[in-house]
Amino acid sequence: MEFMETKIKNEGQILEGNVLLVDKFLNQQLDIELLEQMALAWKEKFKGEKITKIVTIEASGIAIAAITAKVFGVPALFAKKKASLNLDAKSYKAEVYSFTKKQSYTIAISQKLLNENDRVFLVDDFLANGCAMEGLIKLVQEAGATIAGIGIAIEKSYQEGRKRLEEYNIPISSAARIQSMDASTQSIEFLNEE
Amino acid sequence: MEFMETKIKNEGQILEGNVLLVDKFLNQQLDIELLEQMALAWKEKFKGEKITKIVTIEASGIAIAAITAKVFGVPALFAKKKASLNLDAKSYKAEVYSFTKKQSYTIAISQKLLNENDRVFLVDDFLANGCAMEGLIKLVQEAGATIAGIGIAIEKSYQEGRKRLEEYNIPISSAARIQSMDASTQSIEFLNEE
Repeated sequence: MEFMETKIKNEGQILEGNVLLVDKFLNQQLDIELLEQMALAWKEKFKGEKITKIVTIEASGIAIAAITAKVFGVPALFAKKKASLNLDAKSYKAEVYSFTKKQSYTIAISQKLLNENDRVFLVDDFLANGCAMEGLIKLVQEAGATIAGIGIAIEKSYQEGRKRLEEYNIPISSAARIQSMDASTQSIEFLNEE
Repeated sequence: MEFMETKIKNEGQILEGNVLLVDKFLNQQLDIELLEQMALAWKEKFKGEKITKIVTIEASGIAIAAITAKVFGVPALFAKKKASLNLDAKSYKAEVYSFTKKQSYTIAISQKLLNENDRVFLVDDFLANGCAMEGLIKLVQEAGATIAGIGIAIEKSYQEGRKRLEEYNIPISSAARIQSMDASTQSIEFLNEE
């Protein structure tokens, strides 16, 4: 989606260590119009899918899920990271390894909030190694729900995440697919096809 | 706001230990229409305030901030909890003590995202002891921004948070104010005035 590529080029910042800083519009400050534009594109792409819920993982996926849910006219739902006092004991769970934080964590969704009648659309801000999204897929499949598609704001296509997820045969729509990026020159290349 | 009180009565669950479980509509699954209704009420209440940003704390405030930002037509912005690799080094910071997790944590917003020209509206899901919101107030004031108001989805009015925040002389609008609640009888009383 060209608007996302343009936004990344104009307001993103490439840092050393494979970090794309997008805190001006996606990761700390949220450009709501941009999120809405992305959600509308997904709605068009997945029309006829009868999606019942938009599902993501806290924290950075929540804004995308909320605006996408608004556009789709369905509730949003997010997996919580690790057990907290306020988390329902009866939960679907999955383990996820975070390369950023170099430790594993548990994601969980209350069992009463997801079932075999749900057709869900999964969203997240980044797809890099794909571990978080793979955990979410397993969790949703354990609930017996159908995954109609996956929507990603920014995919680092040079990492293994896309390939990891393609094994599940779920349609993936990434708003921007980064082929390469270089912190020293601040240059970034995108893949053209979806 | 009557719609929020009704929602809490119908779908909330009172647990032992002063916990109001609202994961069906606010804390894990998100009722987007409910959030929109709340945001529209805040927009009416704070009309003429020329608000430039909706500011909250991750994670449970993000959905409320995103939908409120959509309704106000401005960006949302959230304070991150503790330093992460992807967090800009130049940040405004504040310390917050969490009674739920029994430990302190740091909240931070990148300095480039907030300045003295901003007039912000702060939102969060719960107001209980008020420590998190007080931290956010201090952080925003450190940035030199003006706080036009505070919007809370659910206020536990029998705790000290409301009083703590009132010392800052910022208008507070809580969608529901709980006067008392009892897990054994599942009964809940609301304060009528705003």
